[in-house]
Amino acid sequence: MNRQQLINEIFTKKTFLCVGLDTDINKIPAHLKNEDEPIFAFNKAIIDATAPYCVAYKPNLAFYECYGLKGMLAFEKTIQYIKENHPNHFIIADAKRGDIGNTSKMYAQTFFEEYNLDSVTVAPYMGEDSVKPFLEYDGKWVILLALTSNKGSHDFQLIEDKQGERLFEKVLKKSQEWGTTENLMYVVGATQGKMFEDIRRIAPNHFLLVPGVGAQGGSLQEVCKYGMTKDCGLLVNSSRGIIYASTDNDFAEVAAAKAKELQKEMAVELEHIAR
Amino acid sequence: MNRQQLINEIFTKKTFLCVGLDTDINKIPAHLKNEDEPIFAFNKAIIDATAPYCVAYKPNLAFYECYGLKGMLAFEKTIQYIKENHPNHFIIADAKRGDIGNTSKMYAQTFFEEYNLDSVTVAPYMGEDSVKPFLEYDGKWVILLALTSNKGSHDFQLIEDKQGERLFEKVLKKSQEWGTTENLMYVVGATQGKMFEDIRRIAPNHFLLVPGVGAQGGSLQEVCKYGMTKDCGLLVNSSRGIIYASTDNDFAEVAAAKAKELQKEMAVELEHIAR
Repeated sequence: MNRQQLINEIFTKKTFLCVGLDTDINKIPAHLKNEDEPIFAFNKAIIDATAPYCVAYKPNLAFYECYGLKGMLAFEKTIQYIKENHPNHFIIADAKRGDIGNTSKMYAQTFFEEYNLDSVTVAPYMGEDSVKPFLEYDGKWVILLALTSNKGSHDFQLIEDKQGERLFEKVLKKSQEWGTTENLMYVVGATQGKMFEDIRRIAPNHFLLVPGVGAQGGSLQEVCKYGMTKDCGLLVNSSRGIIYASTDNDFAEVAAAKAKELQKEMAVELEHIAR
Repeated sequence: MNRQQLINEIFTKKTFLCVGLDTDINKIPAHLKNEDEPIFAFNKAIIDATAPYCVAYKPNLAFYECYGLKGMLAFEKTIQYIKENHPNHFIIADAKRGDIGNTSKMYAQTFFEEYNLDSVTVAPYMGEDSVKPFLEYDGKWVILLALTSNKGSHDFQLIEDKQGERLFEKVLKKSQEWGTTENLMYVVGATQGKMFEDIRRIAPNHFLLVPGVGAQGGSLQEVCKYGMTKDCGLLVNSSRGIIYASTDNDFAEVAAAKAKELQKEMAVELEHIAR
C-alpha cells in the first residue's frame, strides 16, 4: 500500500488506529482454548470486530514465534485472513529486525515476498546496510525504531553527542538519506509526549507509528497535538487495551467497542486538520 | 552451557571456532536440491564434517524464516540434530531480537524454552527492559550487539558523546549493570581490528562473538592479539568461508578442511595463553 492509499483510507474511515495482534494464549478467553487453532480463532474474531474502526493491523512476531511452527502457522493464517477479508488494511510485521546487508536482504524477502506484508519494523543499531535492503520494494515500508515507548528507551536513544544532538535524532536524520516519506516511517512511543515536537522538526512529513497509547499510559490528544501533520502522519497502535479489554465470551464485542471509542476520538482529531 | 563448560570445550578441542549456518538454498550443491529437505540435508552434512573442529554453531534465523514454515522446520530439525548428535556444541540463535519488556520475554521463551538453545543475539537499541528478560535463564546467554562487522556499524555505533565516549562503549558499560560474564557476551566484528583493545578495556573478561573473519575480511591473528583473554574469551565465527568453500559434491569434505585449517590456527593462538 502506498502513502496516498494509506492517507485515503485514514480520511475515508476517519481513523488512524492500528490494532496490535499481540495474542498471548494465556490471555485469551477460556472457551477458545479448546479450539483447534485458538490463536487464529481469537485473531479472526478480533479482526472482524475491529476492522471498521482501524486502518492497520500489527501482529508482533514474538507472540507467534514463541509457539514454534504452530505459532508461525497461526501468524500465516492471520495475515492471509486479513488480506482476503480486509484487503484495504495495512499490515505491519512488528519484528524489529536488522542485520548485515546480505542477511537483512533475507529478512526483507521473508516479510515482503514470502508473506507479502506492507511493512516491517526495523532496528537501526547496525546502520545503513542493515536497513536499505528493506527499502528496495515498491509500495513496501520500513518502520524504523526512533524513540520507543519503553523505559529502556532512555538508556541509549537519548544520548547526546558533542553538539547536543540525541541518538534518536541522528537516526531520524541519517535514515532520511536512505528512504523517503513514501517508504520510511518511524516508531515513536506515545509515552514520549512533547518529544513529538522535536521529532517533527526533523521529520515533518514522515508517518509515525505510535505505540504506547492506553496500556502503557500515553495520551492520544498529546500525540495528536504535537505529532499530527496535514496528512495525519500518524498510525496510533493499541494492543492490550483493545484485544484484552474483556477476557470473557464477549471479548470481540468489547474489543469493537474499545476500538470504536478510539476511532471517535481520532475522528475529532482529524477534523482539526484543514484539508 | 555455562562459562566453565564452554572454556573446557575450547581448551580440550583446541578451537574457538563457531560455524555459521547461514544456509541459502541458492548456494547449496545442485545434487542436494532434489532432496526432500535440502537445507536440513546440507546442514547435517556440514555439521558432521565440521564438529571436531568447532565448539559452536550459529544458525542465522533470517536464512530459515525466509522460507516460511518450511524454513522454520529446517531450523528446528537442524538444532535438534546438533543437540542429539553433538550435545557439547554451544548453539547460538543469531536472531538480533529486542523489544519492550513483555515482548522480549516472549522472544526469550522462544529461544530458551521452545528451542532450548544456549544463546541468542540481541540488539541493544531499546535498552534495559528489552535485554533483561533474556538474562533470567540459568546457563543461557545474551550475545549483545556492540560493534558489528558491517559498514553500517559506523553510522551510529561510533557516535561520541560529550566526554568522547562512543555508543558501543556505552552499550558495553551499561549492559554490565544487567548481566555478568556468566550470561552476557558481545558481538564485536573482526573487521574492527585494533578496536578490540578499547573493547577489552571496558569488558576485560566477557566472551566476544566475532563475526567477519574470512569472507568479510577480518584477520584471526589481529583479533587474538587484541581480544584474547586468559580464558580465551573469543568465539570466532566463519560462515560463508566454510560452508560454501565448495559448491560441488565434495562440499562437506572441503568445509571440514577449511574448519580444520582455522582450528589449527586457533590451536597456535591458544598455546600463547599461559594457563
